[in-house]
Amino acid sequence: MNRSMIRYVFGSIMLLEGVLLLLPVIISFIYREPEGVIYLAVGAVCIILGLVIRAFKFTNKNFFTKDGFVCVSLCWLALSLVGAVPFVLTGEIPSYVDAVFETISGFTTTGATILTDVEFLSKTSAFWRCFTHWIGGMGVLVFIIAIMPLSGNSSMYLYQAESPGPSAGKLVPRMRQTAFLLYTIYFGITVTEFVALLIAGLNPYDAICTTVATVGTGGFGLYNSSIGGFSPAVQIIVGIFMVLCAVNFNFYYYIIFRKFKEALSMEEVHFFFATVIAVTAVITFNIRNMYSGVLEAARHAFFQVASLISSTGFSTVDYDKWPELSKTLILCLMFVGACAGSTGGGLKVSRFLIAFKAVLNEVELIAHPHGVRRVRMNRKVVENNVVRSVMGYVAVSVCILAGSTLLLSVDGFSFTTNFTAVLSCMSNMGPGLEMVGPAGNYSAFSDFTKIVMMFDMLAGRLEIFPVLILFSPSLWRFRSPFKKKIRDIK
Amino acid sequence: MNRSMIRYVFGSIMLLEGVLLLLPVIISFIYREPEGVIYLAVGAVCIILGLVIRAFKFTNKNFFTKDGFVCVSLCWLALSLVGAVPFVLTGEIPSYVDAVFETISGFTTTGATILTDVEFLSKTSAFWRCFTHWIGGMGVLVFIIAIMPLSGNSSMYLYQAESPGPSAGKLVPRMRQTAFLLYTIYFGITVTEFVALLIAGLNPYDAICTTVATVGTGGFGLYNSSIGGFSPAVQIIVGIFMVLCAVNFNFYYYIIFRKFKEALSMEEVHFFFATVIAVTAVITFNIRNMYSGVLEAARHAFFQVASLISSTGFSTVDYDKWPELSKTLILCLMFVGACAGSTGGGLKVSRFLIAFKAVLNEVELIAHPHGVRRVRMNRKVVENNVVRSVMGYVAVSVCILAGSTLLLSVDGFSFTTNFTAVLSCMSNMGPGLEMVGPAGNYSAFSDFTKIVMMFDMLAGRLEIFPVLILFSPSLWRFRSPFKKKIRDIK
Repeated sequence: MNRSMIRYVFGSIMLLEGVLLLLPVIISFIYREPEGVIYLAVGAVCIILGLVIRAFKFTNKNFFTKDGFVCVSLCWLALSLVGAVPFVLTGEIPSYVDAVFETISGFTTTGATILTDVEFLSKTSAFWRCFTHWIGGMGVLVFIIAIMPLSGNSSMYLYQAESPGPSAGKLVPRMRQTAFLLYTIYFGITVTEFVALLIAGLNPYDAICTTVATVGTGGFGLYNSSIGGFSPAVQIIVGIFMVLCAVNFNFYYYIIFRKFKEALSMEEVHFFFATVIAVTAVITFNIRNMYSGVLEAARHAFFQVASLISSTGFSTVDYDKWPELSKTLILCLMFVGACAGSTGGGLKVSRFLIAFKAVLNEVELIAHPHGVRRVRMNRKVVENNVVRSVMGYVAVSVCILAGSTLLLSVDGFSFTTNFTAVLSCMSNMGPGLEMVGPAGNYSAFSDFTKIVMMFDMLAGRLEIFPVLILFSPSLWRFRSPFKKKIRDIK
Repeated sequence: MNRSMIRYVFGSIMLLEGVLLLLPVIISFIYREPEGVIYLAVGAVCIILGLVIRAFKFTNKNFFTKDGFVCVSLCWLALSLVGAVPFVLTGEIPSYVDAVFETISGFTTTGATILTDVEFLSKTSAFWRCFTHWIGGMGVLVFIIAIMPLSGNSSMYLYQAESPGPSAGKLVPRMRQTAFLLYTIYFGITVTEFVALLIAGLNPYDAICTTVATVGTGGFGLYNSSIGGFSPAVQIIVGIFMVLCAVNFNFYYYIIFRKFKEALSMEEVHFFFATVIAVTAVITFNIRNMYSGVLEAARHAFFQVASLISSTGFSTVDYDKWPELSKTLILCLMFVGACAGSTGGGLKVSRFLIAFKAVLNEVELIAHPHGVRRVRMNRKVVENNVVRSVMGYVAVSVCILAGSTLLLSVDGFSFTTNFTAVLSCMSNMGPGLEMVGPAGNYSAFSDFTKIVMMFDMLAGRLEIFPVLILFSPSLWRFRSPFKKKIRDIK
């Protein structure tokens, strides 16, 4: 394993977090809040730490998939452990476990909260809380790749380990340009939504916080009513942007570079939009008598569907009060999730499609045992190892879902609460049903079960394998320095 | 597709069901119940129908996997549709949908009931209801193979399609002998349990009904209290036999033929017994304060674990009142289920182990991308197509579980009820939690959702693919007789 390169990237991440921690300081300056001092101090320590770590240059340019996975896991863990410190020091979240839960929930764009009253937070901390969504949405390592020169293939492997979806590819030949392009699109969407929300009448602070939480498909809100207290115009804007951020970013790349044929042939995007429309229609029909008219029902249905399929977790109404059919549909959306290569979570639409087609092939193979059938997506053959990895992903997701629900049951809450809490955390959604529904929160769980859910959130965002590889015994085998030298010579 | 052979096997199944329908007639004769006449009439019609269908001999000896799958699905459907008729004609289950639900639940050894009061049934019908478990437990096609000469490889493909587990193999070179051997072991276990229950003090009628429902791992009881009203000795005997019937029958074959080395190296059996012991211990600890002593708690824990892992569904207590941890453990047991090649249901232990090992391999492949790792079971390499099929099975199970839960939600019962009802039906368990818990039943569901659950039970028992293949378009494509001839010549 290339420890020197991992150390170097780790230093860069610390440096980056230090710089990002200075943004809440600006907010505190505007609103004259004392909390800014703490953010400044933590940020300064991070910057110094990052610079010191980066001072040791990397000695080895060999960087493989494994190194990428380990690096991404460690960086995300460190980001969260450090990002939680200001919440504790300002006294707004006194328990460190709670603070880490909230920060992991932020960076992984989950939006599950342990706060019973979010309006109690200072504007500085509320901004940092929402802003973690934006940082985690497109990925921190992708940002590092975009702005820092890394050698060789390391950026490729870091990108693959952090990007959501069954197979992350480069848009343009150079990795650095790909990362830069992705962040440009991400930034463009952010600015557009911010302007739209300003026009719709939000004040700049509410607009920026809501924007970063939407674009990262996170779901932390500024108010206890989430988005319910804003005007219908704001709700519709937020709804549209949630959908836009759940689309594979390759789609926008194709549109920008006028490759319309490629853009329109993306099966994942077809399926995604078809699902949004179909589920919105069914739920509207199902809840039509609960609101003053079909139009209002449709607006709430669309907002909630957009929020759930994009794994954002904002809400305009308490969908836990909806009929059982709508609630179960919501759970299905949560499981499937957004498109690959978006900021959304869940299993990902493309994984679902690949798994579905692979199963159809199995059935066809029984009917025609000697036929050769390959899984195709966007008219291209999907490699066997990708199919195998997708099926493995589905299987391990089910195992983690079952295992975590079992661990959560120790606290004694209802099965629906536990199951939907885990599903919601793994899909980086936020709310679930019953106790963790849109009107509830995660504060009642014990520290032990909170740690289980932290693992689920990280496993969901980093797509399980990077987190699992940390538990691989072959990774942590003791190696004497002598043996290491021999291997290096080889 | 070899329609003539499928027709011939279908006729044999009708003939067999006709003969089996005469068994309740004996019971009705003993207890002087008028219901026997109806069973006699239905049985006679079946026998005549079977003989007529079998009069058209098969013309074509070519029989493939696909034919086996289609044949098994059609036969099971017909068995259930016919087996339900006596319940309707005696007036004990007036609705035909309910009667078919009860019969499918019987043949698939699920044990889910729509009856609110089982003690209301005549002794004749109660026996037939329990006896369907015994018929479905080892498989009807396996029985046909054992007693009737079928040509060529047709028995092999029928056996593979009906037997539970990822890869069904022959115990002895000739298929017919394998089937005969399996039924001998099955019969041996049945007689042993019957004698044990007689010694423990049950009357012959209760003993035979309880035995056939246990050995088929079904779970239909004679009393509303299930097994709870019997003495502790009877409960322990039933518990032990549930465990024994959930073990891969190959294990007994090895023991009988003194191949102890092979018997003891069966990983699936190790894992199965380890799970039974571990889960019993955890649940005993979890419920120790709910009963008069640790011993009573351990007895109830063991009985329920045995019942759930074997997918029988008997109960001595209402486990829906247990703490959340125990209830969630029970759901996990339900999902994994019994060993392959047993009469139990669920995903099967060997599938779980293969999927688990395949996922571990995926993780290791990231660490060592150029390593070649194969999944091994019992020290033998598992073929890639078996691994692929297992992963497909897990994926399609999750889809059916989610889709069925969604369809059930139309009725408006709670999520826990719907989810556990579907899980229970797919695993051929019987009871679930809340409304369908051990003290509840399935009567409140609508006809539509009952049909969904019938599909789930059949899909669970026949392991999905035989049921799915009926929906394959390539199977039902119209073929002109002319084209058929050309293909036959080829």
